Amino acid sequence: MGMIGGGNNAFIGAIHRIAANMDGLIELSCGALSSNPDTARASGKSLLLPENRIYTSYEEMIKNERSLSENERMDFVSIVTPNHAHIGPALMALDNGFHVVIEKPMTFTLEEAKQLQQKVKETGLTLALTHTYAGYPMVKQARSMVQSGTIGKVRKIYVEYPQGWLSQLSEKEGNKQASWRTDPSRSGKAGAMGDIGTHAAHLAEYISGLQITELCADLNIVVEGRALDDDGAVLLRFNNGASGALIASQVAAGEENALKIRVYGEKGGLEWHQMEPNTLLVKWLDQPTQVYRAGQGYLSSFAKFNTRTPGGHPEGYLEAFANIYRCFALTLDAKMNGNVPTPEMLDFPGVEEGVRGMAFIENVVASSKSSQKWTSFKI
Amino acid sequence: MGMIGGGNNAFIGAIHRIAANMDGLIELSCGALSSNPDTARASGKSLLLPENRIYTSYEEMIKNERSLSENERMDFVSIVTPNHAHIGPALMALDNGFHVVIEKPMTFTLEEAKQLQQKVKETGLTLALTHTYAGYPMVKQARSMVQSGTIGKVRKIYVEYPQGWLSQLSEKEGNKQASWRTDPSRSGKAGAMGDIGTHAAHLAEYISGLQITELCADLNIVVEGRALDDDGAVLLRFNNGASGALIASQVAAGEENALKIRVYGEKGGLEWHQMEPNTLLVKWLDQPTQVYRAGQGYLSSFAKFNTRTPGGHPEGYLEAFANIYRCFALTLDAKMNGNVPTPEMLDFPGVEEGVRGMAFIENVVASSKSSQKWTSFKI
Amino acid sequence: MGMIGGGNNAFIGAIHRIAANMDGLIELSCGALSSNPDTARASGKSLLLPENRIYTSYEEMIKNERSLSENERMDFVSIVTPNHAHIGPALMALDNGFHVVIEKPMTFTLEEAKQLQQKVKETGLTLALTHTYAGYPMVKQARSMVQSGTIGKVRKIYVEYPQGWLSQLSEKEGNKQASWRTDPSRSGKAGAMGDIGTHAAHLAEYISGLQITELCADLNIVVEGRALDDDGAVLLRFNNGASGALIASQVAAGEENALKIRVYGEKGGLEWHQMEPNTLLVKWLDQPTQVYRAGQGYLSSFAKFNTRTPGGHPEGYLEAFANIYRCFALTLDAKMNGNVPTPEMLDFPGVEEGVRGMAFIENVVASSKSSQKWTSFKI
Amino acid sequence: MGMIGGGNNAFIGAIHRIAANMDGLIELSCGALSSNPDTARASGKSLLLPENRIYTSYEEMIKNERSLSENERMDFVSIVTPNHAHIGPALMALDNGFHVVIEKPMTFTLEEAKQLQQKVKETGLTLALTHTYAGYPMVKQARSMVQSGTIGKVRKIYVEYPQGWLSQLSEKEGNKQASWRTDPSRSGKAGAMGDIGTHAAHLAEYISGLQITELCADLNIVVEGRALDDDGAVLLRFNNGASGALIASQVAAGEENALKIRVYGEKGGLEWHQMEPNTLLVKWLDQPTQVYRAGQGYLSSFAKFNTRTPGGHPEGYLEAFANIYRCFALTLDAKMNGNVPTPEMLDFPGVEEGVRGMAFIENVVASSKSSQKWTSFKI
Repeated sequence: MGMIGGGNNAFIGAIHRIAANMDGLIELSCGALSSNPDTARASGKSLLLPENRIYTSYEEMIKNERSLSENERMDFVSIVTPNHAHIGPALMALDNGFHVVIEKPMTFTLEEAKQLQQKVKETGLTLALTHTYAGYPMVKQARSMVQSGTIGKVRKIYVEYPQGWLSQLSEKEGNKQASWRTDPSRSGKAGAMGDIGTHAAHLAEYISGLQITELCADLNIVVEGRALDDDGAVLLRFNNGASGALIASQVAAGEENALKIRVYGEKGGLEWHQMEPNTLLVKWLDQPTQVYRAGQGYLSSFAKFNTRTPGGHPEGYLEAFANIYRCFALTLDAKMNGNVPTPEMLDFPGVEEGVRGMAFIENVVASSKSSQKWTSFKI
Repeated sequence: MGMIGGGNNAFIGAIHRIAANMDGLIELSCGALSSNPDTARASGKSLLLPENRIYTSYEEMIKNERSLSENERMDFVSIVTPNHAHIGPALMALDNGFHVVIEKPMTFTLEEAKQLQQKVKETGLTLALTHTYAGYPMVKQARSMVQSGTIGKVRKIYVEYPQGWLSQLSEKEGNKQASWRTDPSRSGKAGAMGDIGTHAAHLAEYISGLQITELCADLNIVVEGRALDDDGAVLLRFNNGASGALIASQVAAGEENALKIRVYGEKGGLEWHQMEPNTLLVKWLDQPTQVYRAGQGYLSSFAKFNTRTPGGHPEGYLEAFANIYRCFALTLDAKMNGNVPTPEMLDFPGVEEGVRGMAFIENVVASSKSSQKWTSFKI
Repeated sequence: MGMIGGGNNAFIGAIHRIAANMDGLIELSCGALSSNPDTARASGKSLLLPENRIYTSYEEMIKNERSLSENERMDFVSIVTPNHAHIGPALMALDNGFHVVIEKPMTFTLEEAKQLQQKVKETGLTLALTHTYAGYPMVKQARSMVQSGTIGKVRKIYVEYPQGWLSQLSEKEGNKQASWRTDPSRSGKAGAMGDIGTHAAHLAEYISGLQITELCADLNIVVEGRALDDDGAVLLRFNNGASGALIASQVAAGEENALKIRVYGEKGGLEWHQMEPNTLLVKWLDQPTQVYRAGQGYLSSFAKFNTRTPGGHPEGYLEAFANIYRCFALTLDAKMNGNVPTPEMLDFPGVEEGVRGMAFIENVVASSKSSQKWTSFKI
Repeated sequence: MGMIGGGNNAFIGAIHRIAANMDGLIELSCGALSSNPDTARASGKSLLLPENRIYTSYEEMIKNERSLSENERMDFVSIVTPNHAHIGPALMALDNGFHVVIEKPMTFTLEEAKQLQQKVKETGLTLALTHTYAGYPMVKQARSMVQSGTIGKVRKIYVEYPQGWLSQLSEKEGNKQASWRTDPSRSGKAGAMGDIGTHAAHLAEYISGLQITELCADLNIVVEGRALDDDGAVLLRFNNGASGALIASQVAAGEENALKIRVYGEKGGLEWHQMEPNTLLVKWLDQPTQVYRAGQGYLSSFAKFNTRTPGGHPEGYLEAFANIYRCFALTLDAKMNGNVPTPEMLDFPGVEEGVRGMAFIENVVASSKSSQKWTSFKI
């Protein structure tokens, strides 16, 4: 793996490295870890990369790695730069035969997302999008249960993602994370909706197997002086007639990372909280609620495939993240060895989900500006 | 107290009687317990009412009680009939000098609600509206904390009320509760929004001290064959610039009565769940969340005034209900004795809240039909 | 009902009155509410008792009520005095043909308890002991499930009752509750073990249907200057070979009233917390834990019989308390009318449980003093 | 790192490898992964170890690694064999200059533990004992708060560790884990008390900073046909006068890995659950309970040092495990580079804790057999 971005002090880069490294399947072999050459070099050194594989630009990295022997060179790039700097390295990596792991939201614009989708199609290479929360075993269990009809036809989806970390104007007080995420020139058209709303929307579609067809959004800039939405709520309609609501806020003071989803069908309901991720509540019309737990024998093959520990030994965010890398790596490995990846291996978000995520951003922004209630979900 | 409606097998009538009776301040002295004379008589007998004060119509009851001596006659009526049968007895009771306790939603239409408001004004009598959830001590604590500025200016309000009991077409299978609540001729313009959405809206306004000024509603009939909404979501705007979302569903399969509210301000947030009502979570920007508990010495005078037991001895729904009756009774008692009721006594929902509740129903129904995103909250 | 003790400012007397009054089956008709005549009179007045039935001693009350006509006189006494003042009124009431409700622990000594047991046997009258926690519907559900073999043969029982209210020497600072409960001349041989340990022991035996046969106790006086144990732990052995542990502490700083019990059998386990009393967790060897909830249709007849509200409308401590009074009243009513009370009616703690509770106190105190590990549970 | 034991299908070996690998500080460079040479070889291959560093016995590994250059050879061994096979490789590793990571309980007997303690002392090398639960950040926070006097002098410690996985005679049905853990010739004198009771005892001493001085144990073989205790309860006395209770059971049907500890002092209490490890409840006499959360800025330096993600991104069991390896590695690194490790680095369990753990086993077994109530904690 060669990493692009994620130099010293970058939050998400460090997370990606732990995740990629977790299962002993992936090795960080090179990096262009910062657009600042000094930071790139210092970061590479502190990660013990060989001097000759510490690059100061992604172009240099991709070109040079391409020139190495197949055994030696990286197999894929991992792109963890701010959103506006995704498309360049992604396209170049694919053009040079490298698979891609990429942070969400996938690109800066929907247009770029479609371009990337086209490129993936052309090259036949694999792209993984790190919608981390889809990596949790109990999320996969929820999806399995919806698919197998356990709760009947889905009627309602409530997904909420309250955070409180942008309750003050932190971007003006030297908070680096806040700085780029609230900056339209680096983050894109949306703030909270791009950063966490896309996670929520993906989770809703992933678990339910449905697609949003219409939405009605109310985005707000709550903290004065901010340039992008830090809060919003969206009414949703899905392609099977179900409806729902999505909440994403970064000004819910005192909340940490409280992503939660509930899906109700004709026969029962499912509830999952990211902050207690090893539990899935399964509710029934006339029977007691059941507490499904990660690591147990009664779970679906998809849930089991994404678990390392027995019940009661909690796995968390890093393991969910690692599950995406692991599935991606096992898929690459199978393909490279002429094997067919199993459905469990293939169960990671890719370029299609990336396109839908970017479309979600553009559609909620358009809807929020519109005085019409419903906006069709266009791609 | 004279009860109108609430005969044998009526759910809410029995609840009202326990609540009214809880603190030894109120006695059921007569009743017109059913529009069916046989049921009215049987119900009166089973409640051990004196034969001559078991009435077969509210008209008879009000007229006859009026003719009794002041000492003997009932002080107020409690109206627990279906919504369409509220206005008649309410007006007649007031016209005859009786105070009124009335179930929510207050009337069948907004027009009726305003009429009742006018009548209350004219007569100077007291009307209590049983928005039960406003009777919980930790709801009062939440209100106190908002009022005293503890969480700063309110920015966001999320209130949700998922139930699952109408997930099937129970009204066609002999469920009496389901039958009238889903019937437009008895329930009114709205189903779930009238039954539980009004509770949610009241709770939001009560705790925050704000008023809804605009809303954007999406009401649904999820179960085929039903005549009124059994589900809905509403985006909200409040008179201080805050925004919010309200969810009310009776098809959230497997949910019981899961009313929950979260209010976020500049400095912190509050969270309360009806199903664990003795806890109020108080969240802070940079300090640990605090778990406020009913029965503790650090609570506001309003919370303490509505508590009977020390911390850890859970009170519940019936006590919350009883708090409304108790405050109402203490207010009447103070007034009758020429005293000024304390602010704690006066803290129960009344006719103003009833008008706002009816306006909420009419506005969400109008908004749901509109293709415009925002509908002004009109009264 | 005639109440003995429970005058103004007495905590438990007020609770008893609300509980007795809850279901409209019992009326407070007279009282000897304090051993202090002035307090007795003032308390009677503030409860609106008729002047001539406000008594200043229990002897006067019992004698006078006895002289009234059967229709007029009280049916039973409720004894809510400190422990040392239970036996006198209890015996006299029974001797005069009055049934008895009595606070736990039943008497001051085991000897007295046996005397009372003998008297109940002789008179054929009914005695109810207010082990409140046995009145909760989900406790009854737990008992039903053990009885029906749902969790298999019981192997382990953990019961714990941490409180924090005696973490300081409050009895020296004017806390009336603390004052008598920590005073050996009014409370008896044990402090915390008598006050709350007896509740825990009863709950363990009630749910499991087992009896403690041996115990190993470690009682402590944690707060210097206190005369009775304020803390203790007890290892338990039961008559089917099961073992367990019981914890009772009043110096667990920050705890409210955190009674909790877990019972494990060959096939599964049960868990109940008093502070969230409407939930019973049912655990299985290889299946998801189930969340049984009060008010639901799938519960046992005993659980249903002790519930007033539908699922999700929480009942609490006062309702559990009221369930004991209600079952007692329905039993009396059935007997007085020549009917056979149902098993559900008869399911309230009585004199046998009172004797076992007093034996528990004497045995834990003896065990705590012993250097031998195990002490046989003697009555 | 060279691993001894932990071949294919060994539960804890895989966990150790993930944990050691987590932070990029440690590399698995060789292994003697099984006492069965074929398994050793197959396991080494599947872990991609270089052929010449896949050993078939620990003796071979230690001897051969010793002969490599300092740069090349492993720095330490990780011993993950069953308990009876700890002492041999541990002593030999130390004798040959290798540091040691070792699973708990540290040895087969207390005698061996003291021998190992002596050897560590002589060699000046470092030994880490994987009491995983001491690696959780919120456990460290609890310890910090006790140390700084936040809750005042400690009075009570309740620690419990219920599991249900040995509710049936699984060791006779091919469960490999059950097989060796219930076998006295591989596990030692105690079953559940050795496997999980030692964790509980360590946690109590670690958080409180106290030492057990006396205990009173009741160990049981609940499942017929089993050779070692599968259940037990222990009353505890600590060296500051505090008392407590410890529960460890593997027949608590339906429980996963429900380690929980509560520590009460004069001013407040602490509560931590392993299955929701990122929360520490801090309770107060007269103020609301506080919910301390991992990843927050208000935590102690020890808690922060052992956290990788911001609040609300749950870390779990593997991260806690990794914290022990990370602190161990950073300590080695500091020492090797002539630096003084920080207190945070040095905060991992070592040989002293291992000796106390083995003493705990011997003392509880002795106490359980004794008819005397209290047994002095002897080493």
